[in-house]
Amino acid sequence: MAFLSGLSAFPITPSDPDGRVDTAALKRLVARLCIAGVDSIGLLGSTGTYMYLSREERRRALSAAIEETGGAIPVVAGVGALRTDEAVRLAQDAKAAGATAGLLAAVSYAPLTEDEVFEHFSTVARKSGLPIVIYDNPGTTHFRFTAVLVERLAQVPGIVAIKNPTEKPEEIASHLGRQRSATPKSFSIGYSGDWNAAEAMRRGADTWYSVLAGILPDVCLRLVRAAQNGDTEEALRIDASLAPIWELFKQFSSLRTVYTIADLLGVCRAEPPRPILPLAPLAKEKVAHCLTLLEQDLA
Amino acid sequence: MAFLSGLSAFPITPSDPDGRVDTAALKRLVARLCIAGVDSIGLLGSTGTYMYLSREERRRALSAAIEETGGAIPVVAGVGALRTDEAVRLAQDAKAAGATAGLLAAVSYAPLTEDEVFEHFSTVARKSGLPIVIYDNPGTTHFRFTAVLVERLAQVPGIVAIKNPTEKPEEIASHLGRQRSATPKSFSIGYSGDWNAAEAMRRGADTWYSVLAGILPDVCLRLVRAAQNGDTEEALRIDASLAPIWELFKQFSSLRTVYTIADLLGVCRAEPPRPILPLAPLAKEKVAHCLTLLEQDLA
Repeated sequence: MAFLSGLSAFPITPSDPDGRVDTAALKRLVARLCIAGVDSIGLLGSTGTYMYLSREERRRALSAAIEETGGAIPVVAGVGALRTDEAVRLAQDAKAAGATAGLLAAVSYAPLTEDEVFEHFSTVARKSGLPIVIYDNPGTTHFRFTAVLVERLAQVPGIVAIKNPTEKPEEIASHLGRQRSATPKSFSIGYSGDWNAAEAMRRGADTWYSVLAGILPDVCLRLVRAAQNGDTEEALRIDASLAPIWELFKQFSSLRTVYTIADLLGVCRAEPPRPILPLAPLAKEKVAHCLTLLEQDLA
Repeated sequence: MAFLSGLSAFPITPSDPDGRVDTAALKRLVARLCIAGVDSIGLLGSTGTYMYLSREERRRALSAAIEETGGAIPVVAGVGALRTDEAVRLAQDAKAAGATAGLLAAVSYAPLTEDEVFEHFSTVARKSGLPIVIYDNPGTTHFRFTAVLVERLAQVPGIVAIKNPTEKPEEIASHLGRQRSATPKSFSIGYSGDWNAAEAMRRGADTWYSVLAGILPDVCLRLVRAAQNGDTEEALRIDASLAPIWELFKQFSSLRTVYTIADLLGVCRAEPPRPILPLAPLAKEKVAHCLTLLEQDLA
C-alpha cells in the first residue's frame, strides 16, 4: 500500500474575523473525522484556508488537530507559502508538531518557471525532512505541473505523493496510467475534485483528497470503501446521490459550500476569511435543501 | 490634470535572501528616479515584490523611499494582501508613511467573486483613508476586472484611479474611450505593459505605469513627454528603439529582466525573492547585449 491511501478528509479551519483559529471548533471537526475512521486528515489545505492564516495560527491549528487525533490518524498539513524560506519554516513547524506529511502547492504571485518550482519543492523537502505531497492545484495557484516536472520531482528524496487536480472523467484512467509509469512504485497518486473521485478510485488511484469528507466523512468513506472493494455499482450509486452536492460545489465553490454545511449541521458557525464572503441566504437555502435530499437518499 | 498622470516608475525592492530590504540600495534606485524627474514612483508594485515582503519590511521600504524623495515626488505604494484586514493595515501604514496613494490588486488564492472584490476594495478605501488605485493585474492575481466592476468601484469615495493591464495595441483606443465614459472625470486611467505604453499615451491615457522606468527612467520619460506633447513620431521612434527590451520582458518576464539590468548598471546586485530565480548566464548576456544596442541607438 502506498504511503497515503484511501480517503483523505480536508476540514475547514474555523477562525474569527481577525484570523485567530477557533481550536475548539477545529477539534470538533477533527473528532468527527476520527470517529468516521477516515484514512488521513488533510489539515490546512485550500479548504483549510492555509494561505489566509499566519504561521503562528497554522501552528495552533496543527497542534490542536494532532492532539485530537491522538496520533491515530495521519495528518497531512498544508505548508505552502509564496516564499521558499517561509514554506521551509512551515514544513519544519509541521514536522515538529507531528504531521505525517506536508502538502506543498506551487503558490505564486509572479508566475513561476518549471525550474523555479523544482527548486522550491526540492528545497522544502531537503531542508524540512518532512515527506512532501505535491499539491497540484491550478485553480488556486495558476501553475500547471507538466508530466515531465512531476516525473522529475518524484525522483527527489522525500517527495512521496501527488494530489492531482480534477481531470475530465474520461481522461482519469489514462492520466493515472501515465503518471504511474513515470513515478516510483511507492509514489502515492491521488485526486481531488470530489465529483471525479468515484471514477478515480475505481480506476486504481491511491487516494481521494476530499473536501466533502471534511464535513460529511461517512458517506465519502462508504464511497471509497466500495471502490476499494471493487463494488463499482455501489460506488457509482453513492456518487450519484452526491450529484446535487457536486453541483453546489461547482456553482458556489466547495470552500464556501462546506462552511455553510458546517453551520447547518451545527458543527461550527465560522465564516471564511475576508475577502471570501459566506454564501448569500438564497444559496444557503439551496445547500440546506440538498442536505435534506441527501439524507433521504442515503436513509 | 488627473490625480495621477505621466510616468509612474516602478523600481525593484532590493532585499537579502531572508527578505530584509536593503534600504541603501532602494534609496539609490529612488534617487535615480528623482533626478530623472518621473511624475510618480510606484513603490512595492509587482516589480517591487510586495507580496514577498513582510509588513515590517514593506514599512521600512516605504519610509526609506519617501525619505529619499523628500516629498518632491508622489509615491504610490502597493498595499495588496490576501486578507482584507491585512490590506487595510498595509494601506494605513502607507498613509502614515506619507504615501500619496495605495495600489491595490485583487490578490487571491481562492478565486474571488466580483462582489468579494468590490467589498475588499471598498473596505480598504474606507478604513484606511488612503486614495486607492485599482491595480488590475490578471497575470499575477488571475482575477479579471469587468467593465461593470470598474464602473462600480470608480463610484466609491477614495477610489481614484486604475492601472490597467496590457491591452492589444489595436484595442487600447476603444478600451480607453469606454472606460473614460464609465468613470468620473477626475478618475485617472493608466496602463501597464511597457510595450503598449507609447500607444496608450498617444491615445490619451493619463499614466504609464512602467517597469522599465524603475531602472531606465530617462528614456521612458522622453517617450512620455513626446506623447504628451503630441509628437507621435518621436514617441514611436523611442518605442521602436526599446523593442529589444520589450522582447526580453516577454521572454524572461519584466521582473527578472530589470533585476539583471540593475546589476549590469552597477546600481545593485540583489536577486529576486526565492522561488523566483535570477536569470541564467546566457539570458544575462542577452540582456547586456540589448542594453548596449539601446545605448547606441539612443546616443
